[in-house]
Amino acid sequence: MQSVVKNLKIYNSISGKKEIFSSVIDNHVGMYVCGPTVYSNVHLGNLRTFTSFDIIYRYLTHLGYKVRYVRNITDVGHLENDEDQGEDRISKKARLENLEPMEVVQKYTYDFHETVRKFNLLPPSIEPTATGHILDQIKLIKKIIDEGIGYEVNGSVYFDVFEYNKSNNYGILSKRNLEDLIHNTRSLDGQSDKKNPQDFALWKKAEPKHIMKWDSPWSEGFPGWHIECTAMSNKYLGDIFDIHGGGIDLKFPHHECEIAQSNVCFGTNAANYWVHANMLTLNGQKMSKSTENNILPDEIFSSGSPLLSKTFSEPTVKFFMLQAHYRSILDLSDNALLASEKGFNKIIDAINMLENLKSYSDKTSDFDVEKWIKGCYDAMNDDFNTPILIANIFEAVKFINKIKAGSAKISEKDYKMLSETMDSFVFDVMGLKKTNALQKGNDKLDDVIDIILELRNDARKNKDFSLSDKIRDMLNKKGISINDSDKNSSYTID
Amino acid sequence: MQSVVKNLKIYNSISGKKEIFSSVIDNHVGMYVCGPTVYSNVHLGNLRTFTSFDIIYRYLTHLGYKVRYVRNITDVGHLENDEDQGEDRISKKARLENLEPMEVVQKYTYDFHETVRKFNLLPPSIEPTATGHILDQIKLIKKIIDEGIGYEVNGSVYFDVFEYNKSNNYGILSKRNLEDLIHNTRSLDGQSDKKNPQDFALWKKAEPKHIMKWDSPWSEGFPGWHIECTAMSNKYLGDIFDIHGGGIDLKFPHHECEIAQSNVCFGTNAANYWVHANMLTLNGQKMSKSTENNILPDEIFSSGSPLLSKTFSEPTVKFFMLQAHYRSILDLSDNALLASEKGFNKIIDAINMLENLKSYSDKTSDFDVEKWIKGCYDAMNDDFNTPILIANIFEAVKFINKIKAGSAKISEKDYKMLSETMDSFVFDVMGLKKTNALQKGNDKLDDVIDIILELRNDARKNKDFSLSDKIRDMLNKKGISINDSDKNSSYTID
Repeated sequence: MQSVVKNLKIYNSISGKKEIFSSVIDNHVGMYVCGPTVYSNVHLGNLRTFTSFDIIYRYLTHLGYKVRYVRNITDVGHLENDEDQGEDRISKKARLENLEPMEVVQKYTYDFHETVRKFNLLPPSIEPTATGHILDQIKLIKKIIDEGIGYEVNGSVYFDVFEYNKSNNYGILSKRNLEDLIHNTRSLDGQSDKKNPQDFALWKKAEPKHIMKWDSPWSEGFPGWHIECTAMSNKYLGDIFDIHGGGIDLKFPHHECEIAQSNVCFGTNAANYWVHANMLTLNGQKMSKSTENNILPDEIFSSGSPLLSKTFSEPTVKFFMLQAHYRSILDLSDNALLASEKGFNKIIDAINMLENLKSYSDKTSDFDVEKWIKGCYDAMNDDFNTPILIANIFEAVKFINKIKAGSAKISEKDYKMLSETMDSFVFDVMGLKKTNALQKGNDKLDDVIDIILELRNDARKNKDFSLSDKIRDMLNKKGISINDSDKNSSYTID
Repeated sequence: MQSVVKNLKIYNSISGKKEIFSSVIDNHVGMYVCGPTVYSNVHLGNLRTFTSFDIIYRYLTHLGYKVRYVRNITDVGHLENDEDQGEDRISKKARLENLEPMEVVQKYTYDFHETVRKFNLLPPSIEPTATGHILDQIKLIKKIIDEGIGYEVNGSVYFDVFEYNKSNNYGILSKRNLEDLIHNTRSLDGQSDKKNPQDFALWKKAEPKHIMKWDSPWSEGFPGWHIECTAMSNKYLGDIFDIHGGGIDLKFPHHECEIAQSNVCFGTNAANYWVHANMLTLNGQKMSKSTENNILPDEIFSSGSPLLSKTFSEPTVKFFMLQAHYRSILDLSDNALLASEKGFNKIIDAINMLENLKSYSDKTSDFDVEKWIKGCYDAMNDDFNTPILIANIFEAVKFINKIKAGSAKISEKDYKMLSETMDSFVFDVMGLKKTNALQKGNDKLDDVIDIILELRNDARKNKDFSLSDKIRDMLNKKGISINDSDKNSSYTID
């Protein structure tokens, strides 16, 4: 199976086209994704980005590639002390009373890990931190200076974009033209040591109140933002690797600068495929912390938000994200989530039905399962098109419902293939999970409610309607609704 | 409450005595604990150590201290490539096919975090990695050389224990005498660059096949093991902090060397209180990977072991550990775990009963709750004596069972104090959790069973014993037992 489906196409932001994927080393994939900055809670938009690359990681692994997936943690912060305390004894003694950036880092790294765990994203193969690679960054900066592209001014080091552009193309990724950039950049006289406003920092000399700083050949300071990703991706994936990913907001300047650095240091664009996940908007508008148009993951999952009618489970939100292609803008709204919840529950119901199905003894099937499987792979091979994959899955759901209603049949062989493929795309490739309410764990609750319903049915049979109504009201009060039919009663939990 | 109980005593390994605890900075505590080496799954013995310090962290926080708890990750590994591949292009291209130490680090760091999460250990305030602090370590090594205690030989740097011992006491912690050490150390001629076999490495020059290495003033190499903890504890806690902890196997040489380094660099013993958690043995013998006398955390919790009759939940194992004092050797066996499981369930049953108790309207109590609370604090203030605390808790359990049996009474005020103190010691300080079957998450289940019990009590009042028996039998069949008393009924879930 897996050998025939290796005609994967990936949209490459450099060429602006879908390209047949071919890895640098057979059967191996090296993938680097720009990870979170851990100075605040992870945004929902970031979560969408990491989910997109989780699916890519899962699908490549599913195809049989050995993937080394590196996703960094940006923990070099720019926190400052209120006052310059120097190195005197008192300040050292009082260290415990001061803000410690690494305490902030730990808090939000932990929060990030908790959130991605709940979202069932797989841990990357390596999760390097920027502060853990200062020496590697210093080494690259030295190299860029040696190559005549980096220059030092007052303890800081900058990348000379114009010098670089003489023999390279600054703008290869973002399609920006350096001439245009010049005209569009206001000159801020005297505010900078840079030769040109387009130059970017490789190393910054720290002001005295800056807390996080390290020794370097140029000053006690800290690395520029772009150099960390070049250092870490090169260290773990080599001079040229397969996929470099990130949110679309990182395309310029961050990824453009990474490509420039990599060309100076290694003579490559770092990665062969540059992949960008698109934005998440909220009710049609950009999310923004400063306006009220903002929502945090935990608000959706547990604490609630004035913008939503209810909370939604993690798998529901993940399913909602996968209903859009990763390169499309995705708009989150209460209605969209409610629709996704319905859709997701339909799929899980169908999978549960399939698991419980006993009547697959037919010789033939009313559904071309092999063609359907090919359709699933075709969708994913077309630049990881999850919405098309999900449309395919709904085709199968329709068919499963027909089997259950007795209006369609399936052979044992097809039953097996259908079950396995549903499971592997829904749970392994998309990484969805049955939600708590739909999960087996709550067996005990089911048992006990069944007992109450039996007692209530007895009461109805005995025409003891005051008792049967009392039971219904007691359950209602606890958020459990009874749905009576002619034959029996079922229940739903709010 | 909390102000009167601040007469905490901690056993200090330096003095060999329990000492009144007094922190360097009022209301703050700085605590450093040597964390895991992430090149294999966490041992059960390590887990005991981290559990011991989790309780100390929790109790100090409970007393009102603002604790900065630093627990490091030792990720500097000594993995080697099979062959020396140099820096040629082919090896760089082939990087993906090689063993990458940071991939190993990520795997076992993730495993460690999953295990401590299941064990309900709180995340430390800062979790620094050794590789993230190479520059800090180099800085300290320079200082030790400048002070005339460190010396370089062939690109490696060693700590001169004899030179140090002239004006300091090498052995202050482990009570070893340098003269004895000399006589007990075989001299390995020609195998070492060290002046004396007792000297320890601060920096080691890497052999070509060594994978993890960094630039330094002396060689491309890697730091010695002891210097990492001195660098990280000093960076986040200052020149002198409150508590330095670790497993007892780290007392010598690791902690002895840390004290020596700290004396040279900062003129202090690093911490005022050096605290050591004792060993965990298995069936009376030391655990060992090479013999079969070994058990991994996951084998106890989920996969099973030939040495155990069944699996045990994480809270049960944690409770088992807390039944011994952290400074005593603790022996794990099937019988001991079975006994702990019974004991732990008794406590949780009592807490559940307490929660459901409605008849606390008595004017007086048959139990001196205030004296009992003092006993709980006295136990913990006596060097965190959890077994005595647990004995106290069992006293309360006995009393709660008497209330339930109708043979003891409690006033509303005492009921409140008893409930709050039980919860805070069992859940907050010891960090135990109701296991899944007994959990609060199952509120819905409680609600529904309460409805059934109410229906059944109605039946009993109406002398409809066939219905009340039928309900009892239905519940029994589903593993729920009803316990009737004169006034009302309670239930337990198998």
